[in-house]
Amino acid sequence: MSRTERNIRLLVAYDGTDFSGWQRQDSAKGRTVQGVLEAALARLHKRPVNLSAAGRTDAGVHAAGQVANFYTDIKNMAAERFVPALNSLLPQDLRVLAAQETSSEFHARFAAQSRTYRYYIIGERHALPHELRYALQLWRRPRVECLNSYARCLRGELDCSVFALSKDPSHSRNRYFFGALFFVERDTLVFEITANAFLWKMVRSIVGTLLYCEEHDVSPDAFRALLASGERKQAGPTVPPHGLFLWNVAY
Amino acid sequence: MSRTERNIRLLVAYDGTDFSGWQRQDSAKGRTVQGVLEAALARLHKRPVNLSAAGRTDAGVHAAGQVANFYTDIKNMAAERFVPALNSLLPQDLRVLAAQETSSEFHARFAAQSRTYRYYIIGERHALPHELRYALQLWRRPRVECLNSYARCLRGELDCSVFALSKDPSHSRNRYFFGALFFVERDTLVFEITANAFLWKMVRSIVGTLLYCEEHDVSPDAFRALLASGERKQAGPTVPPHGLFLWNVAY
Repeated sequence: MSRTERNIRLLVAYDGTDFSGWQRQDSAKGRTVQGVLEAALARLHKRPVNLSAAGRTDAGVHAAGQVANFYTDIKNMAAERFVPALNSLLPQDLRVLAAQETSSEFHARFAAQSRTYRYYIIGERHALPHELRYALQLWRRPRVECLNSYARCLRGELDCSVFALSKDPSHSRNRYFFGALFFVERDTLVFEITANAFLWKMVRSIVGTLLYCEEHDVSPDAFRALLASGERKQAGPTVPPHGLFLWNVAY
Repeated sequence: MSRTERNIRLLVAYDGTDFSGWQRQDSAKGRTVQGVLEAALARLHKRPVNLSAAGRTDAGVHAAGQVANFYTDIKNMAAERFVPALNSLLPQDLRVLAAQETSSEFHARFAAQSRTYRYYIIGERHALPHELRYALQLWRRPRVECLNSYARCLRGELDCSVFALSKDPSHSRNRYFFGALFFVERDTLVFEITANAFLWKMVRSIVGTLLYCEEHDVSPDAFRALLASGERKQAGPTVPPHGLFLWNVAY
């Protein structure tokens, strides 16, 4: 970046249903959030623009509070004007909620202190179609207190190998958890989890494992043993992406 | 219907985004709710089945509580089993919420005493993409009390010509209103209106007119005069369909 470029931080939300995840694919086959957003930025700048994001969400995963940044050489334009300028070029399922100038060192991914994800679950009752797009239909009513007896184990630094895909490229599988909780919001069960970072598909593996343990009446001690085992085959099934939102990123 | 056929009443919900409204189109071009639901019923019955519905919603309009009925000659199947049987054949944006046997005379359209619609509006704040699919983004914050000063005029029997399309085929344009109200639900403005029946696109014309009057500071007396004029050109613009839900039908 040159000395005259400004670093712009964006707050971004999207309906992940029709996106192949955040990350631009060089094959140019998939419609990705990064690809669509960078194309809009390129139209404004009349040159390619690179975006960094806090969470590289998977295909089908939504975001209510994704954070990204880019460097601009456009002069005489207040940072907040990028909101209407970008939204006028973006499809309805991808919205910029806020834009602000930030320090030149800010990097949306590396500066993030924690990420919060939410997973929405509809239990016994019938879901309306506009809820089914954004929540897992479970067809049973899980016991919230039992689920929270496992969720309370997800605190502090933990080896997350049990939730990791074998192909996960991360150097370390240790992550620091700030907290995890199930709660009921109107008729819907919500799982909220905050950690410094997450492995690939880790939130969905956690949710699937906690639901599996609840269904099979696993004791909290046995759940802790399962965590400590580090064996992927001990984990429950991975739940589908459409119930998951990247909710918030803290810096 | 033969003497042995049972009359089944369905409670139906749909995301109207990808439907060309309720009503089956003989051209077979549009994907309609009635068409998709009747095709599923035909697969179960191995013959064509006709559905009647309480509200023939327009293209893009959603439903949380549509009511429909049909006659079945399938024996040895409890009425409530039609819920999973149909849902297994239906797309995710169309769900059957309940099914029950009803009297042989019941007709979802003609027996309905009133229909309730809701229209969702997001004012000043940015809408998340999954809200934009189901609400109008207004980009200003309308005054709820002012809107309700007009809404309170929508009570009792009224000539609705001002909200009618010139091609509307109804014999009479008088409708009986049970009530209309704006209220705030979390961050969203909701308009709820109940009447015995509605003309084509009438709810969307009412919402557009009320928002227009509020924006231009029309007095409640001037609004009543506008209603009494019966002149379509006095009405405000018709708001788009994606904020509208058929909410409930009373019998």
